[in-house]
Amino acid sequence: MKNTFGKSITVTIFGESHGSEIGAVLDGLAPGIKIDEEYIASKLSLRRPRGAISTKRTEADRFRIVSGVFNGRTTGTPVCILIPNEDTKSRDYSATRQLARPGHADYTAYCKYHGYEDYRGGGHFSGRITAALVAAGAIGMSVLEKKGIMIGTHIARCAGIPDRAFRNLQQDIRALSESTFAVLDEEAAIQMRAAMEKAAGDGDSVGGILETAVTGLPAGLGEPWFDSMEGLLSHALFSIPAVKGVEFGDGFALSEMNGSTANDSFAMQDGKIVTTTNHNGGINGGITNGMPVIFRCAVKPTPSIYKEQNTVDFMEGTDQKLVIRGRHDPAIVHRARIVADCITALVLCDLLAQRYGTDYLAETAQDDNRTG
Amino acid sequence: MKNTFGKSITVTIFGESHGSEIGAVLDGLAPGIKIDEEYIASKLSLRRPRGAISTKRTEADRFRIVSGVFNGRTTGTPVCILIPNEDTKSRDYSATRQLARPGHADYTAYCKYHGYEDYRGGGHFSGRITAALVAAGAIGMSVLEKKGIMIGTHIARCAGIPDRAFRNLQQDIRALSESTFAVLDEEAAIQMRAAMEKAAGDGDSVGGILETAVTGLPAGLGEPWFDSMEGLLSHALFSIPAVKGVEFGDGFALSEMNGSTANDSFAMQDGKIVTTTNHNGGINGGITNGMPVIFRCAVKPTPSIYKEQNTVDFMEGTDQKLVIRGRHDPAIVHRARIVADCITALVLCDLLAQRYGTDYLAETAQDDNRTG
Amino acid sequence: MKNTFGKSITVTIFGESHGSEIGAVLDGLAPGIKIDEEYIASKLSLRRPRGAISTKRTEADRFRIVSGVFNGRTTGTPVCILIPNEDTKSRDYSATRQLARPGHADYTAYCKYHGYEDYRGGGHFSGRITAALVAAGAIGMSVLEKKGIMIGTHIARCAGIPDRAFRNLQQDIRALSESTFAVLDEEAAIQMRAAMEKAAGDGDSVGGILETAVTGLPAGLGEPWFDSMEGLLSHALFSIPAVKGVEFGDGFALSEMNGSTANDSFAMQDGKIVTTTNHNGGINGGITNGMPVIFRCAVKPTPSIYKEQNTVDFMEGTDQKLVIRGRHDPAIVHRARIVADCITALVLCDLLAQRYGTDYLAETAQDDNRTG
Amino acid sequence: MKNTFGKSITVTIFGESHGSEIGAVLDGLAPGIKIDEEYIASKLSLRRPRGAISTKRTEADRFRIVSGVFNGRTTGTPVCILIPNEDTKSRDYSATRQLARPGHADYTAYCKYHGYEDYRGGGHFSGRITAALVAAGAIGMSVLEKKGIMIGTHIARCAGIPDRAFRNLQQDIRALSESTFAVLDEEAAIQMRAAMEKAAGDGDSVGGILETAVTGLPAGLGEPWFDSMEGLLSHALFSIPAVKGVEFGDGFALSEMNGSTANDSFAMQDGKIVTTTNHNGGINGGITNGMPVIFRCAVKPTPSIYKEQNTVDFMEGTDQKLVIRGRHDPAIVHRARIVADCITALVLCDLLAQRYGTDYLAETAQDDNRTG
Repeated sequence: MKNTFGKSITVTIFGESHGSEIGAVLDGLAPGIKIDEEYIASKLSLRRPRGAISTKRTEADRFRIVSGVFNGRTTGTPVCILIPNEDTKSRDYSATRQLARPGHADYTAYCKYHGYEDYRGGGHFSGRITAALVAAGAIGMSVLEKKGIMIGTHIARCAGIPDRAFRNLQQDIRALSESTFAVLDEEAAIQMRAAMEKAAGDGDSVGGILETAVTGLPAGLGEPWFDSMEGLLSHALFSIPAVKGVEFGDGFALSEMNGSTANDSFAMQDGKIVTTTNHNGGINGGITNGMPVIFRCAVKPTPSIYKEQNTVDFMEGTDQKLVIRGRHDPAIVHRARIVADCITALVLCDLLAQRYGTDYLAETAQDDNRTG
Repeated sequence: MKNTFGKSITVTIFGESHGSEIGAVLDGLAPGIKIDEEYIASKLSLRRPRGAISTKRTEADRFRIVSGVFNGRTTGTPVCILIPNEDTKSRDYSATRQLARPGHADYTAYCKYHGYEDYRGGGHFSGRITAALVAAGAIGMSVLEKKGIMIGTHIARCAGIPDRAFRNLQQDIRALSESTFAVLDEEAAIQMRAAMEKAAGDGDSVGGILETAVTGLPAGLGEPWFDSMEGLLSHALFSIPAVKGVEFGDGFALSEMNGSTANDSFAMQDGKIVTTTNHNGGINGGITNGMPVIFRCAVKPTPSIYKEQNTVDFMEGTDQKLVIRGRHDPAIVHRARIVADCITALVLCDLLAQRYGTDYLAETAQDDNRTG
Repeated sequence: MKNTFGKSITVTIFGESHGSEIGAVLDGLAPGIKIDEEYIASKLSLRRPRGAISTKRTEADRFRIVSGVFNGRTTGTPVCILIPNEDTKSRDYSATRQLARPGHADYTAYCKYHGYEDYRGGGHFSGRITAALVAAGAIGMSVLEKKGIMIGTHIARCAGIPDRAFRNLQQDIRALSESTFAVLDEEAAIQMRAAMEKAAGDGDSVGGILETAVTGLPAGLGEPWFDSMEGLLSHALFSIPAVKGVEFGDGFALSEMNGSTANDSFAMQDGKIVTTTNHNGGINGGITNGMPVIFRCAVKPTPSIYKEQNTVDFMEGTDQKLVIRGRHDPAIVHRARIVADCITALVLCDLLAQRYGTDYLAETAQDDNRTG
Repeated sequence: MKNTFGKSITVTIFGESHGSEIGAVLDGLAPGIKIDEEYIASKLSLRRPRGAISTKRTEADRFRIVSGVFNGRTTGTPVCILIPNEDTKSRDYSATRQLARPGHADYTAYCKYHGYEDYRGGGHFSGRITAALVAAGAIGMSVLEKKGIMIGTHIARCAGIPDRAFRNLQQDIRALSESTFAVLDEEAAIQMRAAMEKAAGDGDSVGGILETAVTGLPAGLGEPWFDSMEGLLSHALFSIPAVKGVEFGDGFALSEMNGSTANDSFAMQDGKIVTTTNHNGGINGGITNGMPVIFRCAVKPTPSIYKEQNTVDFMEGTDQKLVIRGRHDPAIVHRARIVADCITALVLCDLLAQRYGTDYLAETAQDDNRTG
């Protein structure tokens, strides 16, 4: 199951940075789900590099659905989505192929694949593959939205600059869904961009923290032990390249609190059971409690920098100096946020289908076109 | 796979706080592994409550291996370990059964299991179940040790008090393996205990941060995407009750760095490829690079406190006041550290068996007793 | 997943013929299912050896449910069932330990487990383990019955003697459920018993064919490709020791027919879509069509016979003669039939839970005892 | 895991009969395996329809490997293979869309997918999808061959005409690998072709039995219970459309034997342990014993026949007459034999990788091109 994730609804990804196409197979979706290609394209566009704060490699991401959709709706059989790699520069990698870029997977790929790995542009390790995850996950997001489940991620922090906290989740998520730079506070956004541009100018890079909120989830989702909501989400979220930490609710800050502060009191509100605080991020004992699910991913600075670095030639076993060339991002938080949304959507769709059955996520439209 | 984890080597757990036994089935272990019951007992004893900083419930943890071991060695077929629950107080739960203890799973269990859950002492959600994980994981630890892979966890922080950082990993891990209170700095240990005792006296509780180091792992373990080392470990680690965050290497601190700082330079050292820093915690692109694997778990304060709390009667839908009685831990970091070790061991055994085959973890002793 | 089967509802088995206990962990069951221990015991009694046609080893099968059941109902968490081995004769195996019993797993176990296997009484390969499958599967059968899904298996053929075909499935299944020798035609039953007794007298053994019918399954269960109803059921059914063939509907006989005969015509009957024949065993394209699901398992004669046989000492690598002693069955079809029922029930419960959600198999009783 | 099979090496299939492409993702292959596209093409050509005994739809099967192969060798990351559908006739299905073709999946697909299924040419149920399995499995076959593991399938029986039994397995398998009509006895081949042509002339169809032999497998492969060699192979083999029975060794014939006949005696031969007969098909207790693994698949006659048939309009719920038009096979055994080979190869590769590690199937060539 190396490149396949999920149980009832699974996603399988494939491809390399410089291959002809990358793609994903999304299996287990209920039949009858309307596929809105514009919606998918709009999510892909949120991942696309823009301006000085991103790589110069730009991809149209003209995806193609080759199976599992008929007359505009899912058939219930596997949906394969292909995205061509268009803007690949076939430059010569031979000069640096044996030099391990610090913070990258060159050396570990070599250890694992014994030198047979496709090293061009990071190969299968490239962040490019996340486009396939976004295409598949966008379908998941659209399905969840129809169930009233909304997902939104903002850059909570970048280069030491904090965004404002979530306030009105519904409004904030809506705002984020339309924003190409997912920061809630405009002033913070300006400062973060400036920090990214400065890092780019310095030949350096910056990281940040992504914070995701999910509203509308029913209580009772997740398992007490191995398949806790935290365990499943973190498993998937660590697939996002550069994520090195995941925390739920107040996360690491909880470790400094007393129980009397950390505990979220329950209360009745409009006949519904709620918690009056949400330090636990909507999850108790691995299971959703009906409050918004909140988590944060720590994203390390992109390892591709233009400064000279010390490294080794891993084939010759010699110390070397490395200067990386090519097209790279001085930060990826602003592009990774939609990947976080989409991976979250895939995990949640899977859990809902497991709990409520494979047809649960289907639409109930009457005006459909089943008989062709 | 709700209570089963792993692929080549799987662990399945079962049991409730007040049932007759809890247990684990460990399947896929190589045949011929010597089972040292004293070693298992010693790991279980590190989990056992002690003194004023733990619950008054004490369990002898007299485990019993009912299958998969013959003449003192694994047979290669499933190992079932049973641990009786001996010190269960059959007190009356009826007064508070309907009241959701804040921070606990009472309400979410009710949502998920519709009231059929065994609510006595937390039922299947009880930290008691981790004893089964420790028993199974102790076998994993002993197997890894023979391969030169050592795992150790210390309380890096508790109630705001920091332990000293890891220094000489081999020595530190050895020291931790013999310590019932896993703190490297003696002064810090005294202060942490004091903070726990104070919390206990206040009817309150404290949390902390567990930091784990793994040495001796080969490079090349883990997968680029879904089954990254971070993804698999975090998935398992979030099974530890109260863990709300997991970070690798410098984790969240990485998000504040520049790439030029965060990148770990490679260098040759005694003919071996190493990194000169370890901000990435021994993992690049989801795959081990041969450096120590380092991660931290955020442990929230135990939710069972003796102060009056606001909550609801989740069956009646009414606001209520709750005062928890019974026997509880004012902190669990000092007990959870061995759970972190053992869960880590299970994940690593599984990955090694997947990569190198099911016999890889077997011993190669000549003086064995195969012919009975 | 060596000893674990299923996705939404999983069963994990463990134990050896001469260990203290064997058992099963059944995970994923809906909460609130009434557990009728007498019903389980009645199914176990159908597996128990009887008279001259079975081994002299008799086991009371006094099972014990150690988790997952509270106040007589499932909690939704793993159900662990233990069955002690009581009648184990600790005879000396050293004389024959190195001799491969023909038709048995002694030699293959040695190849796989390198001599560490528990060889006493077949160890983990022993048919004894099926008692655990029956205990777990009996819960599955009881759940399905409440959904109107009935499973019954008869000995369609033994030692060349055919039973009559299924006629009225509901009645036949009911009759079989109460019969300790599952043959529909009384005369055939007498002849089969006689053949078994004769084989026993000759120090030999006989095999047979088990035919199973499932009624009441909804249409639409199963998948087009890998998880076809045939694929999943056969996967599980080949777990029954001695099963060497599985066929659905007319199975191998279909291979001799023309399409115009083999095709089952559809027709309307009482407003329902039915097929007028059932050559395909209720399955088209891997998916149930609402007709009874019918399949047959070929059971080879039990390999333990008392005649002298040629074999090898697999440790010394020498040709040898072997005379098997001990207690053995001259046939197992009459004991295996309930194993077929129970394994079928587990597969179907899993598929129903996947399709309709984890709560689907729960009961909807009003008079329950949820609040303790 | 609906369209994904395997654990260490997995295959995921997708596509529909009339979509733009079908395909497979093969994940978990060792890095460094030479990909011989001609070899794959040659296996695909064995599946291609020929002459009067096959459908008139002919596909060039010009596959395209879009990922996981670099410089002619596997990289160790997922291999996605795409095969375009070229010869799809976009005829009008509206006249018969609601009529369930007997023996086909139209009605069960409707029950499962609620009418959203792609019904053109059988959609995802089409035998066309097996081309993707063959392309993926051909890679598996080539890998196994280098390990000395050979797989060959012949039409053991068709329309009542038997082929001769396997004799010299190595020679027979070699002969089959080059034969477009996999029958060992030439006279039988002529008669079978005649029977197929007669069936075609009658607007009818015939079935048959495929017999597969695998040589060179090591002893010790497979598991005692759920993942027995028989269970895993049958699970996969029932994916071949029209397979309704699978038996190992003498299979159903074993059920008529006495134990003294059915047991395969062990003997020493040239210092190796062998069995002197192979009634058990090379498998004891679910585990290979080093003898050839032999099994048979019952293939029902193709359900598409030109005779008028009774059926229903499953949307209207009315009785109807149906005459099928279009291009169909009067038999598929001669095309399915390579599918059986390829599916077997995939299962065996997976089992070998699980047992011996992910690098086991890699080649050890020195003259490779790892450094690009």
